[in-house]
This record gives sequence, C-alpha cells and structure tokens, in this order.
Amino acid sequence: MIQPFQIASGPRVRFGAGEAAFAGEEAAALGMKRPMLLTDPGLSAADVLTPIIGGFEKAAPGYQLFEQAETNPSDESILRAREFYESNDCDGMVAVGGGSSIDTAKAMGILLTNGGKLPDYYGADKPANRVPPFITVPTTAGTGSEVTRASIITDVERQSKASIHSDTLYADVAIVDPSLLATLPKRFAAGALMDALTHAIESIGSLRSTPWTEALSMQAVALIGRHARAFVDNPADPGAAGPIALAATLAGASFTNTGLGIVHGLTHPVFNFFGGHHGTTNGVLLAAVMKFNLPAMRETYARMAPLLAGAGATTAEAAIEGVRAIALDIGIPATLPGIGVKEEYLDRMAIEAAKSATVQTNPLPADEKDMKKIYLELMG
Amino acid sequence: MIQPFQIASGPRVRFGAGEAAFAGEEAAALGMKRPMLLTDPGLSAADVLTPIIGGFEKAAPGYQLFEQAETNPSDESILRAREFYESNDCDGMVAVGGGSSIDTAKAMGILLTNGGKLPDYYGADKPANRVPPFITVPTTAGTGSEVTRASIITDVERQSKASIHSDTLYADVAIVDPSLLATLPKRFAAGALMDALTHAIESIGSLRSTPWTEALSMQAVALIGRHARAFVDNPADPGAAGPIALAATLAGASFTNTGLGIVHGLTHPVFNFFGGHHGTTNGVLLAAVMKFNLPAMRETYARMAPLLAGAGATTAEAAIEGVRAIALDIGIPATLPGIGVKEEYLDRMAIEAAKSATVQTNPLPADEKDMKKIYLELMG
Repeated sequence: MIQPFQIASGPRVRFGAGEAAFAGEEAAALGMKRPMLLTDPGLSAADVLTPIIGGFEKAAPGYQLFEQAETNPSDESILRAREFYESNDCDGMVAVGGGSSIDTAKAMGILLTNGGKLPDYYGADKPANRVPPFITVPTTAGTGSEVTRASIITDVERQSKASIHSDTLYADVAIVDPSLLATLPKRFAAGALMDALTHAIESIGSLRSTPWTEALSMQAVALIGRHARAFVDNPADPGAAGPIALAATLAGASFTNTGLGIVHGLTHPVFNFFGGHHGTTNGVLLAAVMKFNLPAMRETYARMAPLLAGAGATTAEAAIEGVRAIALDIGIPATLPGIGVKEEYLDRMAIEAAKSATVQTNPLPADEKDMKKIYLELMG
Repeated sequence: MIQPFQIASGPRVRFGAGEAAFAGEEAAALGMKRPMLLTDPGLSAADVLTPIIGGFEKAAPGYQLFEQAETNPSDESILRAREFYESNDCDGMVAVGGGSSIDTAKAMGILLTNGGKLPDYYGADKPANRVPPFITVPTTAGTGSEVTRASIITDVERQSKASIHSDTLYADVAIVDPSLLATLPKRFAAGALMDALTHAIESIGSLRSTPWTEALSMQAVALIGRHARAFVDNPADPGAAGPIALAATLAGASFTNTGLGIVHGLTHPVFNFFGGHHGTTNGVLLAAVMKFNLPAMRETYARMAPLLAGAGATTAEAAIEGVRAIALDIGIPATLPGIGVKEEYLDRMAIEAAKSATVQTNPLPADEKDMKKIYLELMG
C-alpha cells in the first residue's frame, strides 16, 4: 500500500536554452520594480550575466546588481546581502548562480519577511512567512536549489553548515537555461553533475520516496547516465547541457519532497574539516554509500542498471559500478585523500556524520561505526 | 536538443488513504471561514462525504454544503453555484467529486474573481485573476481535474462542450484519498481508469511532451498496467485503489502541461450526439487512436509495452494490444455501437473532431477523413 505523502507546489519551471533572457520579464510580471539581482563575482567575469542583464534592461530597468554572494555562503555574507536589499529599496529577489547565490537569497528572504536572526530558522518548518517575490536562475547543473525548500549556509561562529528547510523558501519561478552552463570549468561541471546524481539516487532510496518522486529521479538518473561524459567533455554542447540541466532540476524537485541519504551526512563533515567542492565530495562517496545501502536497495538499483551502465546491465552491482565508472570518467577523485581528507580526522567526522538528519531517511540505519567504515573504505 | 517548455506550479498534492478527513483543516489553513463545499447528490447518498464533513465540523464549521453540482456541468448549473456562493457569503471553494464538481468550482471561481460571462473565458489564458482559495478532493480516479488548469463545461445554448484553460484555475491543494473510491460502481471505475490511461498516453504522445511530463505519465501507465484489473474488480482494495488514484493524478499533472491528442477530439462529438460516460468513450477509442499514431510513436510505445502487456513485451504493437486487453478485461465495450453511436452521424462527428484543438498536439496530423476512418474501424 502506498503510504501518505505530500508533493509541494514548487516553483513554475521555465526550461530551455536562451530562456534566461526572460528573467527580467518574469520579474516584472511578479510585480518587481527594483529586483535585487544576486550573483557572485565569478559569473559577471565569465559573461554569464550578459543575456540576463539585457533582459532586465528592457523589462525591469530598476534592477539592483549585487555581486557579492559567497560560495558556501556564511551567515555574515547573508546579513550583508540583506543590508543591500533594504538600503536599495528592493522589492524582489532574482538569484543567478550555483546553490550559493540561490541559498543566499533564500536565507536573506526569510530574514526580510520574518525578522529575527538566522539561527531562529535552522531546522525544519520554522519561518511563518514566504520570502519576497523570488526567481532562481541556476548556472550550475547540480544543487537543484532553484526548485528546493532548503538553504544551506555556513554558520561562522559554530564553524559548521546549517540548514533552513521550509515551504516558505520556494521560488515563484525557476528559469533553467542550459546555455548558461557553457563556460563552466570541467571540474565544476563534473562535481555539480555528481551532486545531481547523488540527489536523484538518494531521493529514490529515501524512506520517504514515493512513486511520484521516483518517476522524476529515475528520469534524472537516465539523463545523467546517457549524457554525463559528453557534458563534462564540453559543457557548451546543447545536446548534453540540456539533459544535464534538466536532470539537476528534476532531482531537486524530487528530493525536496523526500529528503536525502547518508552521502550528504558524510559529505558535510568533509567540508567542515577540509573544505572542498560539495558535489565533488558527493561524487567520491556515492558508489561506496550505494554499496552500504545495497541490502535494502537491490531491486531498485537493478532497475537503475540499464540507465547507468548500458542497456545490457541488469544487476544492482552493475548500477553501482556504473556510478563508479561515470565518476572516474569525468575526473572525480577515487579516494578521500584525493580531495585532501586525512585519516586522523575520521573518528570525529564519523561522529558528526552519524548525527546528520539524513540518517533518518537513509534506506538503512547507519551509526558512527558504519560511517567510519565507509570513510575507511575510501582512504585508498 | 530539448525544446523550451514550462512546468506549471500546480497544487500541493496531499495523497493517502484517509487524508480527505484533513480537507477542513486545509481549508482553515487557507483562511476559509465559510468554505463552499461543492459536491453532487450521488456522493452524499454514497456516504463518501462522511469523513470529509467530519473534518469540516472540527476545523471549519462555517462550511456551506452545495450538493447540486451536475455531471457534465451546464453553464446554467455554474451560475446557480455562483448564486449559492455569493448569497451564503462563502470565502473559498472545496470541490469534492469527479471532474464535474471540480470543473463547476473552477468555472464558478473564474466568474467570482473576474466578473463577466463564461463564454468570455472559453479558450486559453483569458482570465486575469486567480480563483478564490480552492481545494480539490477527487472521488473518481480519472479526470485528473484536481491538478489541471482546465474546466470542461456544457454550453446549453451552443449544444456543445466548451473549455476554459488557464493557470488561474489551479487549486491550492489537491487531496487525493484512494479510500474515497471504495464505493465506486465498477463501470465508473473502469471508465475513469481508461480516462486516466488516455491522459497519460496522449500526454506522452503530445507534440509538447517533455522529459519531465513523460516521467510522470510513464509512471501512471506503469501503475495502471499493473493494477487496473484488480482495481475494477474491487475498488475498495487499498493495494489497487492507491496506485490507480495516484496514476490519475500523475496523468493530470502531466497533461496539464502538454495538452492531449485526438482521442479527446474524437470523444467530445460522441458526447455531443449521444451523451455517455467520457472515460468509457475514451476507453473505446484509445487503442484505435494508438494504432493511427503508431508511425510517429513506435519507439515510445515499445517502451510502454512491458508496462501494459507484461515483462516480456517489447513491441509497440504489444503495447496497443495491452491497452485493448485491459479495456476488454475491465468491461469497456469494444465498439462504438456498444456505447450507442449510430453510423449515420459519423460524417458530422468527424467534421467536429477534426476541428478539435487536440489535433494541434497529436503526434500526427489528422483530418476529417482520418477521424471518419478511426470511427468506422470501431463500428464493429
């Protein structure tokens, strides 16, 4: 029997090469006269903003450009963004970038409409009021943040990542334009893609998975399985960038309803101790976690096998090998030391990983010993 | 390359056996103090309303019960509903029923917030304002209207069906409770299910199909292929009613973004000349239309084959035979005379069918001659 579940009314999704040029028009349609255009310094340098700015000049010329969104945004950087929004009388948010710009906007938005301090909202379902009118324009095909209810921020004082989960964070419109990926450096393309693949596979494995979300995530797995290598080889190839951009959004639309699994629980301690790129770290861990979850996932992974390892593949093991092969082929390091992890930290990392909320939705229970074992297996 | 598309931000979906009891709570959460509870006389007779009314008594006791929604609602019946809403100072709509109650609410809602007359809104994207706060609770697993942007009404003066399509018609919340299907008479269960299967297959075939909508519709096809016979055999079986209720909603969430194909174009003239049950008529026509569309759909139908005709099936022809076998097994008549169609009307029906907007999204062009040929093939 299918257990009760809910599917959120997420953002309207506008997908297609060139669609980002309509962000200004969408902002105007939402009533924004002085939208805050949030982005990071790297994007304007890479000319990604040009078509977007063009659209704003035509349709919403009162836009205010803020280019100081941080990678893994700190709580302090969010307060600076808020200060900009208020001192410039902005009336809406348009976040252009990776998860970082988008998560900055979400956290800022909660402060704008709810008052208080960020830690008041850490956890699930705390804010009462929706963020201001909000458009997301992802420039990496990874986090899915354009369609999710989560904002992940770095709490400087606590020296750790914190998250805010709430339906009040959903954007009104997500504009997913694969042509924005064209200038993505290969290593970011690879990491972002592994982030998306991790979201899809962990959403399918979640104890809160549903036939609805599984349909979305399986399509994401299929698109990534078919186009991952071509995309990382050339992110400017529209025949590959389209499917990968769509896959990342599909995976986001799925996991926002189901939660994730322990890949994410294991990744955050790596970041807290060593930094590094979130998606790449997921990519190092994903196949090993699938192996750990295998006893509960045999039938489901078997269905993924032809999507990940070619038409003839039929076993759960083949699906895991398929993930490993994709990661290897697109340049993801095979081991944790390959991304700077040192063995003497594993005990502390395992303790932290076991406390992660993602344990609750992982297909199998996982304690500190399990976490340590998975880390150890990847020490090369 | 994936062509540009949009996925609407549809209603939040709350799914599960027993969830309808929360409709009152959801109404209160949307701020309704005097919700109009729209339904049809058959439902209160069948005790379907009991748990729903119980929920309203607790959470929104100011509800106003209107039990005069019509099957294939006439424009006149919608004006009566509107009169009830206004004279009872209602402040929100909760539609419980098949497509008819839900479509009555949608059309009434447009008049309430936009003024004017129904024909002002026939067609696509005419209304400017959203309907009032709106909850849908389907009691047949068929139309998908709980999650779509369409209202189909019968224009008495013009003696034909008319439709309003607009994003302003989306409900805020759709509560999909498979236990409400328990007392559905078998012939309605069968007809509604064929309606849902038609939506799924026509959405996949639509010229506006996308990888996103295809994922939802393929899941609907899979659930229907697996559970159709058990559901019609016993709509009170939760192991079958759950998947079928979900399939109908998934198909709705898909086709609301893609449009349909000529099964629907062929069905409306049958109704206009002979009446009858919409879903059952779709069920009579579906396999024949799939055969007509086969040259454009060979690869896609082949992927459906194992879902519709069992694990070993691999060809497009097997998928079509699978649809025919399901229809036969659940008691759908095999021919048009079986639902009262007379040959002397076919020319006029074909002319009308060829004018249907569904021709524009059908995988192959279809003119009057094609429509006549499909009708003729089903004359037995």
